[in-house]
Amino acid sequence: MNDIEYMSLALKLAESTRGQTSPNPMVGSVVVNNGAIVGMGAHLKAGEGHAEVHALTMAGDKAKGGTIYVTLEPCSHFGKTPPCADLIIEHGLKRVVIATVDSNPAVSGRGIEKLKKAGIEVVTGVCKKESDQLNEAFFHFIKNETPFVTLKSATTLDGKIATTSGQSKWITGEEARLDAHTYRHSHDAILVGIGTVLADNPSLTTRLPQGGINPVRVLLDRSLRIPITSKLVQDKEAPTWIFTTEQGSNEKKLELEELGMVIITLANFSIQSVLKELGKRGIMSVFVEGGAQISGSFLKEKAVNQVITYIAPKLFGGQAAPTAFGGEGVRKVEDALELEIVSVATIGKDIKIVSYPKEGK
Amino acid sequence: MNDIEYMSLALKLAESTRGQTSPNPMVGSVVVNNGAIVGMGAHLKAGEGHAEVHALTMAGDKAKGGTIYVTLEPCSHFGKTPPCADLIIEHGLKRVVIATVDSNPAVSGRGIEKLKKAGIEVVTGVCKKESDQLNEAFFHFIKNETPFVTLKSATTLDGKIATTSGQSKWITGEEARLDAHTYRHSHDAILVGIGTVLADNPSLTTRLPQGGINPVRVLLDRSLRIPITSKLVQDKEAPTWIFTTEQGSNEKKLELEELGMVIITLANFSIQSVLKELGKRGIMSVFVEGGAQISGSFLKEKAVNQVITYIAPKLFGGQAAPTAFGGEGVRKVEDALELEIVSVATIGKDIKIVSYPKEGK
Repeated sequence: MNDIEYMSLALKLAESTRGQTSPNPMVGSVVVNNGAIVGMGAHLKAGEGHAEVHALTMAGDKAKGGTIYVTLEPCSHFGKTPPCADLIIEHGLKRVVIATVDSNPAVSGRGIEKLKKAGIEVVTGVCKKESDQLNEAFFHFIKNETPFVTLKSATTLDGKIATTSGQSKWITGEEARLDAHTYRHSHDAILVGIGTVLADNPSLTTRLPQGGINPVRVLLDRSLRIPITSKLVQDKEAPTWIFTTEQGSNEKKLELEELGMVIITLANFSIQSVLKELGKRGIMSVFVEGGAQISGSFLKEKAVNQVITYIAPKLFGGQAAPTAFGGEGVRKVEDALELEIVSVATIGKDIKIVSYPKEGK
Repeated sequence: MNDIEYMSLALKLAESTRGQTSPNPMVGSVVVNNGAIVGMGAHLKAGEGHAEVHALTMAGDKAKGGTIYVTLEPCSHFGKTPPCADLIIEHGLKRVVIATVDSNPAVSGRGIEKLKKAGIEVVTGVCKKESDQLNEAFFHFIKNETPFVTLKSATTLDGKIATTSGQSKWITGEEARLDAHTYRHSHDAILVGIGTVLADNPSLTTRLPQGGINPVRVLLDRSLRIPITSKLVQDKEAPTWIFTTEQGSNEKKLELEELGMVIITLANFSIQSVLKELGKRGIMSVFVEGGAQISGSFLKEKAVNQVITYIAPKLFGGQAAPTAFGGEGVRKVEDALELEIVSVATIGKDIKIVSYPKEGK
């Protein structure tokens, strides 16, 4: 096995923790000595050991003189755990291979500097592209202080999210609907508009066969129309944060707060101000599941980092049947949000398309 | 090489004639003797030699004692050419391998019967699925006496064919637009509504780098609103047939007829009556290129045999921005036209999806 293969393994270990490390990134590590793997590990949860700690603990004395592969630059500072760079030096490693140099300006390059000073050979950039992609939400958050936004839609082949009479159950098949739940698991928050709550009374929880972590449920509800009886208020399955304005009555706010809801009143209600507030509260990634009005608002503000589209092999027809992105839309073709498709695949009987905005990704 | 490989070659020869054999099917043939290919051919054009004639002419004396592969059952009757079954017998073939038995009830099985009576071994059904697919339009026409209908649409990822202000140039890239021209080449007719002519003044010709055959241009125009100055009337590039009703003035009809247009006045104007009339006039396949109103009408009548969808990686947004299938659409999810996807691929920066209606294909 060569550097790329060992790093690919470390990336696989990191990937397996998707959804459980926030606000930390996913990190994996492999320790190799004389061509044999002697340690491996991943960062499992914020506040617990880093990937290098687990891998070096497994390796013990066998780490001496070996190489450690780590997907993200080892930390050099005392946080909730001692610096990993120090631990690597203590274990007598000869070589450190890193995929991505930490983008946090307070950390960037310092771990590497420390290692080099101790006479250790440091190689960076191995599988950097894959590693950057893996933690795209984390890096976006560190850079912008607002969450990475994933927009999801599920439509017919003719772009409809419902028939002209409003029926929408179900457009896509079970496999596609299940796949959407993996995004609930991997995002810190799920966001919908009040229209979706009034229409569907969804629970917005992660329902995967093996369980899954529930995201914070974020509701945009300017005039606080949410029914007290709705699942978001009553089921206690996950925290519910409600963004509202002064149009929402104080009485209702108090009532909802007593029921455990977090009420956030914005003077200046916009997608950008919602994202800033979510960022301040540590939400690194948001999964936007509609409806059309909300998706249209995110599109209008170009507050989109990833677009997940499920397309069902059926035709509804009807100009009046609703489409995934409401609002006014663009007037000129050149004002469209241009995307780059990174994958197209069939999922069950449906098609799944993953794409990214071309600029401002 | 085995039967399947030889038949695959015969199918490739047939496939190469797509668009040029109507009203005949595409047929390919390969003659093999002692493990060597001694003849090959395809039916190139109606009125000219059948595939077997070309292949046996090439083989000459070397056909004796060999095997002939032919994608469609050899004919047994005198048409524009003598019966191929007789020719096979005369050439002394020992074995005939056929993909598809002729579905024309006047012919079905008779060629095979003749061959067997002459002591020749006949094998059928080799690569039948691929062969049936190749001539799906022909078989549909023989069975229904109406043309095989291919609906094409080109939309954004959010299902739009234009922005809210009506701009639509261009949604898809050059590769996808070129690919659409291969369907113009391979269909007997291209069909649009008067709205498309008034909006775009299209020429509806086949513009491929290597040339291509122009389809008959069919226009649905109830009240004969087509401008005399439009390309369809003036350019003489291909025949133009205009379906209209009594709402169209006789004066305009005469004027258009003098300019070479074929005017077909229907008392009972419907998609079904248009298709019946096209069938009577020998049109075996129709490529429907919109606009939304026309596509919606075909969808409503479920007069669809194949759906070609190009999806561009961009978002227009806007509930009012038009989608590919206009009209009323279905009210219930279960009334949707259910499709089966046969291929999904990227084409340039766009996605191409080929699908078929599940029933009544």
